[in-house]
Amino acid sequence: MGEFDLIARIRARAGSRDDIVLGIGDDAALLAPPPGRQLVVTADTLNEGVHFPHGTSPADIGWKALAVNLSDLAAMGAEPAWCTLSLSLPQSGTAWIDGFLDGFLTLAGEHGIALVGGDTTRGPLSVSVTAMGFVDAGRALRRDGARIGDDVWVTGTLGDAAGALALLETDPAHALRARLDRPTPRVRAGLELGGLANACVDVSDGLLADLGHIASRSGVAAQVDVGALPMSDALRGALDDTTRTALQAGGGDDYELCFTAPADAHARIDAVSSQLGLRITRIGWITAGEGVHPVDADGQPWSPPRRGYDHFATS
Amino acid sequence: MGEFDLIARIRARAGSRDDIVLGIGDDAALLAPPPGRQLVVTADTLNEGVHFPHGTSPADIGWKALAVNLSDLAAMGAEPAWCTLSLSLPQSGTAWIDGFLDGFLTLAGEHGIALVGGDTTRGPLSVSVTAMGFVDAGRALRRDGARIGDDVWVTGTLGDAAGALALLETDPAHALRARLDRPTPRVRAGLELGGLANACVDVSDGLLADLGHIASRSGVAAQVDVGALPMSDALRGALDDTTRTALQAGGGDDYELCFTAPADAHARIDAVSSQLGLRITRIGWITAGEGVHPVDADGQPWSPPRRGYDHFATS
Repeated sequence: MGEFDLIARIRARAGSRDDIVLGIGDDAALLAPPPGRQLVVTADTLNEGVHFPHGTSPADIGWKALAVNLSDLAAMGAEPAWCTLSLSLPQSGTAWIDGFLDGFLTLAGEHGIALVGGDTTRGPLSVSVTAMGFVDAGRALRRDGARIGDDVWVTGTLGDAAGALALLETDPAHALRARLDRPTPRVRAGLELGGLANACVDVSDGLLADLGHIASRSGVAAQVDVGALPMSDALRGALDDTTRTALQAGGGDDYELCFTAPADAHARIDAVSSQLGLRITRIGWITAGEGVHPVDADGQPWSPPRRGYDHFATS
Repeated sequence: MGEFDLIARIRARAGSRDDIVLGIGDDAALLAPPPGRQLVVTADTLNEGVHFPHGTSPADIGWKALAVNLSDLAAMGAEPAWCTLSLSLPQSGTAWIDGFLDGFLTLAGEHGIALVGGDTTRGPLSVSVTAMGFVDAGRALRRDGARIGDDVWVTGTLGDAAGALALLETDPAHALRARLDRPTPRVRAGLELGGLANACVDVSDGLLADLGHIASRSGVAAQVDVGALPMSDALRGALDDTTRTALQAGGGDDYELCFTAPADAHARIDAVSSQLGLRITRIGWITAGEGVHPVDADGQPWSPPRRGYDHFATS
């Protein structure tokens, strides 16, 4: 299969939207942004062996490549619209690309995001996506808006993907694996939090590391009750207590939203939780100072046994 | 150097524009598109050993990664605005990234395009850029607008980059090398042609292959006078006649604009050429039919000795 055949195969399945003037097939896409709204743009790459284990199915790679970008849009409170896909492939079998598109486009369809362009090249397996969305001016969820007295919240459960990674050698098909391979971007939660949260980040590198971005960008400190971190039943049954807590606080790939909100937003956050059928848990609070300060159930400082994930860390 | 240090290094040097509400440093960028204009989006990736030779300097890689994307914006007649950069690096020395940014940001500054986000990961060397720009509604240069009776034109000279590749083993520092490593995206020409050309494509895979996209998308045939293809003095002095012609017609990496325009646009095209100090040469004409039909100086069919470049071709 040549490059042009591959592009034709992708083009035939890319979704459409009324605001796409010209999609895949020219030198660039032509798009009509909605008047008066801001454009939200993010780019994230997945490399084999770094962001997903060798042997991950093409459909799961396709899903995850889009999911991590939708998660960034969610963290801004944005409505997904368009994306581009740059795909480097060591070979180009039709089964692989069809599987990849199954995963990518299933998730795209769920969130109304259309593939409008990109590039296919020969090279080591690597998937780069740039995702675009919209937000009303002044309503974006930024990292720099946390205020002293805010509560700190997180959606869903933490540590599941890191748990699957920890079990990869001994139990690669563990139920937690779905949370590693097919993360759920919290797009609807991000949209609902647009009028409620003061600051937001998605948890991709580990809760403490990502909450650290909110603290540093906002010029505040974050206190975290490590015992309050939400845990799935699957994780509770899979690993010992110390390991679980470490993965919840420092593991990556959760793609949950961590946000801060004033105390008087509590009832409305509970309402969003009920409406979406999504657990949203208060895990800490914002104070004057700097940094992230985890404490255990006794109020004593808790030390993470490992750092937040850093793609360039020497380990 | 960790990932966050690397991002900080990039962020400190990324340009700014008044329409950037929030640049690098959050989950996504926040941008304010100009009211009433269309958004033009393209994505292209460079991989080592495929799109640039092993041993290419970091500054040249940075330049070329942006240039090939600016060339796509140019081919749409778009005004460059913003870009994202996804960078996979096997190692992360400060000298390499500083050199890369020198090349990337020098070209970005020339065209007023600002880096607003992206991603750095560990992996085989790969550079993915998504570039965004603006065009007035109805004024974009598309591939599907060529009309019977149009002339076919091309900017600059053809075959120089392919000539440098042909000389890579015997004379890697030949003067043609600059055309391979530092292509000049024809952004200003694209903007000027917005009201003149009926169809346009940038020459990245080889003239005949790229002109073939115009022909097939427009439902017409293109006749090309191979003897009229513009040639640089450097290429004329470097290779024999047969090789030169083959590289001009079928070599890739030119990043010139090939466009069609009605006969009555001739004088205005000459004026654009004078204004920009850029050679623009009439090389053929559009007829009924399909495909691209090269002819030699005697009007006889000319056969390319090699195909247009296909990243997935087995050769």
